[in-house]
Amino acid sequence: MKHEGYTSFRQQMRKIADIEYAAAVLEWDKEVNLPQKGAPIRGQQTATLYGLAHEYFTAPTFGALLADLHQNGADLSAKERRNIELSLHDYQRKSCLASDFVVRRSALVSKGYHAWLAARKANDYSVFEPALADLVAIKREEAEQLGYAGHPYNALLQEFEPNTTTQELDVLFEDVKTQLIDFVKHLKQQPQVDDQFLHQPFDKDKQWAFGLEVLKRMGYDFQAGRQDLSPHPFTINFGPSDVRVTTRIDEQGFTSMTWSCIHEGGHALYEQGLPEADYGLPTGRYLSLGIHESQSRLWENNVGRMLPFWEANYSLLQEYFPKQLDGISVEQFVRAINKVSPSLIRIESDELHYHFHILIRYELEKALVEGSLSTKELGAAWNAKYKAYLGVDVPDDNQGVLQDIHWAHGSLGYFPTYSLGSFYAAQFYQQAEQDLPNLNAQIRAGDNTALLSWLRENIHQHGRYFTAQDLCTRITGSPLRFEQFMDYAKAKYSWVYGLSS
Amino acid sequence: MKHEGYTSFRQQMRKIADIEYAAAVLEWDKEVNLPQKGAPIRGQQTATLYGLAHEYFTAPTFGALLADLHQNGADLSAKERRNIELSLHDYQRKSCLASDFVVRRSALVSKGYHAWLAARKANDYSVFEPALADLVAIKREEAEQLGYAGHPYNALLQEFEPNTTTQELDVLFEDVKTQLIDFVKHLKQQPQVDDQFLHQPFDKDKQWAFGLEVLKRMGYDFQAGRQDLSPHPFTINFGPSDVRVTTRIDEQGFTSMTWSCIHEGGHALYEQGLPEADYGLPTGRYLSLGIHESQSRLWENNVGRMLPFWEANYSLLQEYFPKQLDGISVEQFVRAINKVSPSLIRIESDELHYHFHILIRYELEKALVEGSLSTKELGAAWNAKYKAYLGVDVPDDNQGVLQDIHWAHGSLGYFPTYSLGSFYAAQFYQQAEQDLPNLNAQIRAGDNTALLSWLRENIHQHGRYFTAQDLCTRITGSPLRFEQFMDYAKAKYSWVYGLSS
Repeated sequence: MKHEGYTSFRQQMRKIADIEYAAAVLEWDKEVNLPQKGAPIRGQQTATLYGLAHEYFTAPTFGALLADLHQNGADLSAKERRNIELSLHDYQRKSCLASDFVVRRSALVSKGYHAWLAARKANDYSVFEPALADLVAIKREEAEQLGYAGHPYNALLQEFEPNTTTQELDVLFEDVKTQLIDFVKHLKQQPQVDDQFLHQPFDKDKQWAFGLEVLKRMGYDFQAGRQDLSPHPFTINFGPSDVRVTTRIDEQGFTSMTWSCIHEGGHALYEQGLPEADYGLPTGRYLSLGIHESQSRLWENNVGRMLPFWEANYSLLQEYFPKQLDGISVEQFVRAINKVSPSLIRIESDELHYHFHILIRYELEKALVEGSLSTKELGAAWNAKYKAYLGVDVPDDNQGVLQDIHWAHGSLGYFPTYSLGSFYAAQFYQQAEQDLPNLNAQIRAGDNTALLSWLRENIHQHGRYFTAQDLCTRITGSPLRFEQFMDYAKAKYSWVYGLSS
Repeated sequence: MKHEGYTSFRQQMRKIADIEYAAAVLEWDKEVNLPQKGAPIRGQQTATLYGLAHEYFTAPTFGALLADLHQNGADLSAKERRNIELSLHDYQRKSCLASDFVVRRSALVSKGYHAWLAARKANDYSVFEPALADLVAIKREEAEQLGYAGHPYNALLQEFEPNTTTQELDVLFEDVKTQLIDFVKHLKQQPQVDDQFLHQPFDKDKQWAFGLEVLKRMGYDFQAGRQDLSPHPFTINFGPSDVRVTTRIDEQGFTSMTWSCIHEGGHALYEQGLPEADYGLPTGRYLSLGIHESQSRLWENNVGRMLPFWEANYSLLQEYFPKQLDGISVEQFVRAINKVSPSLIRIESDELHYHFHILIRYELEKALVEGSLSTKELGAAWNAKYKAYLGVDVPDDNQGVLQDIHWAHGSLGYFPTYSLGSFYAAQFYQQAEQDLPNLNAQIRAGDNTALLSWLRENIHQHGRYFTAQDLCTRITGSPLRFEQFMDYAKAKYSWVYGLSS
């Protein structure tokens, strides 16, 4: 017999999902299509929908239903009980914030965003600093309201990476500092890779066509999604049967388009692989930002910047751009796309330096939240860390502390998930190679289906059923270990730089 | 002092509008972008939003607020009182339908739509007939629940054309039968207009570019809208600052694209001209479908199929298509685009025969609703009327009674608004010519701003403040008169066919 309370829980969750996904359609449309004058009303419409979804989810009657099902749900299946448990957890987290606090926070976020835009325009951090100070203060207040064990930053992390703590992150980033910095230093002493040929004109339409082909070859289902252009590439979904990606095209090189396609394609394959029958339920949603990022990075780096993938796809690229790639072997090509060189801007970074960018942000935002660093001191601290970890001088605020939008949105605790994504990706991919002995041969032959099936079975289909930690242990036999990322990095870059191992 | 009750009324109306316009974004996206597999969930998401909007609007507490403001709103402005009056009217209309009735109706509409699709596929009306019988029955029931004076069809008309009755329509369509049929017969006896050159290949991209240019020249604001392609052209809006149009392109002729642009452009100019400050309120919404259609038809026919407009724009068209239009004078061109010839399909009809298509549908649906015609008899009745009024033999159901989607959607009472639109357009345009003595000279010079300002001032800015009848009298000094359409038709087609008047 079907449990009646569970049926109403499910219906309510589907309704909330309908509203949230509708808001997501409005956001997609804003990025891809919105005429200029439509922006203010669109902002209001989107806010109304998110407000409604929040109202339904945090309604005390709904909370009571969840509590009752949690208490008296012995007859439910394990998955149903897990959905109740996760929803109750979300309910408690969302409803413990006082509603006047939520209003204040959303006003500060809006103020922060506009201050950040103004500061970007002036290329002057001091324009943003007072708003950021307010944002940091309210995020501290949020941590207090949410409650936490240990560091207050732990409370903020939960929004993006549930069950992860500074304790775990401190260990990982300590490894970044000790192991990765040394390795990158060693690479810098090698003769540099030639990537000149990547920087020349590449026709826009041909890039677009190539990007679509790459997505198809990855297994992205164009009957359940589409690709469009937008200034900042992103993936968004309105259920697993409509998962959309965007890319951008730089006519002075095809790399930005290509790896944004592969990266967003990885995100999209995850969303397309979530169980449609669990629409609206926790088990129908992505697990965490770190796991989401593991899917994009696995395709982007562990697959898409490796020789087997390009042994399958380089001839197609050459068909599109015969002149530009004339005389460049696939090995030269793969070395070029993996050139290691420090940069000022996170999103332009190579795969290794990337984690120094995240390390810096992690250290800074933790210090801001614990109060050991003030927003007034932030600019100087930023520049000092870039000098120390990357060896670069920051010439101005736009290329420094103002480069990311995250803090302006009040998103403290988000950045670490990017590094977690890469580390999970390395560990997952090494397991996939063990489980699928022909994996690299298949990829070399242009067949990505075994890999996709492996991801579907081990990761996608579970949604939020397991925690990230449990999922990782379940798949690889061990919790997340930085060593596996280092193994991957050493093997790959030794080949790229022709080091004897 | 601001009236507190009015402020909450306004807030609630804005919230409802946010939800409805969000649903409209989902519908636009469905027509323009939706990947195939996304359709089922999208249908559910859209239904959830419309359901929510309905729930908020018909909430008894909201009804009580409206009743109270209606009773005790003496301190409100005339416009505020009008907004209350209209909203209360809408509330009463929407909330008098029992909720189980609404559920039953929506199930029958869904069944009807799928039966119509199946019937179209089989080219067989009998496949659709049982579902249509159910739809007619429930629309009769709806009329009873809504209440009416005189003919039950009056109750159904209100959804599309408030304050209009069969009494008024009977007079208009009697005029169509007596006056227009004779005139069209007379035209058919004349030597026929040569429009051969319209039927040849016209490049798709050039058509697209020309259509955008035409919209710009009409005054359509691309900062508050955009044009896209869709199988069926339509206009949709999410507030007056985001009003979108679509068109379609037939490569074997540019006429379908051009006049769909102008037609939808006319609809869009109306929506862009509604007062933004009244977002969500009746005075911020279009008046009726007939008035909406008057705006599209005025631009399409009274402007866009007349000589002055093409004296301004023909040279641009010739620039795009020099070969196809070589040796064709602007007069020949305008005669060709006004060729009168009976057709089987309403949406392919010329401007005059069009009203016989509507007359037939009006007579048939009125008979269905009053019960003097059964759905079993409908197919034969359709064919007989096409023979009688247009002189054509209907070869099959797809070209006959199955051609329109309206009845499958349960939209009985919609069709007459198309003819009302043309008749209002003729009357409005003649008034504009009187008010603006240089109007045709301005249009000939490519300047449409005076006309647009006249429409904005006389029609657009008022939203639903006046009834259609009052608006017409206010602008033209008289209620709607078919004679003014006949005057326009006679003058125009006498020129097209070279008749001595």
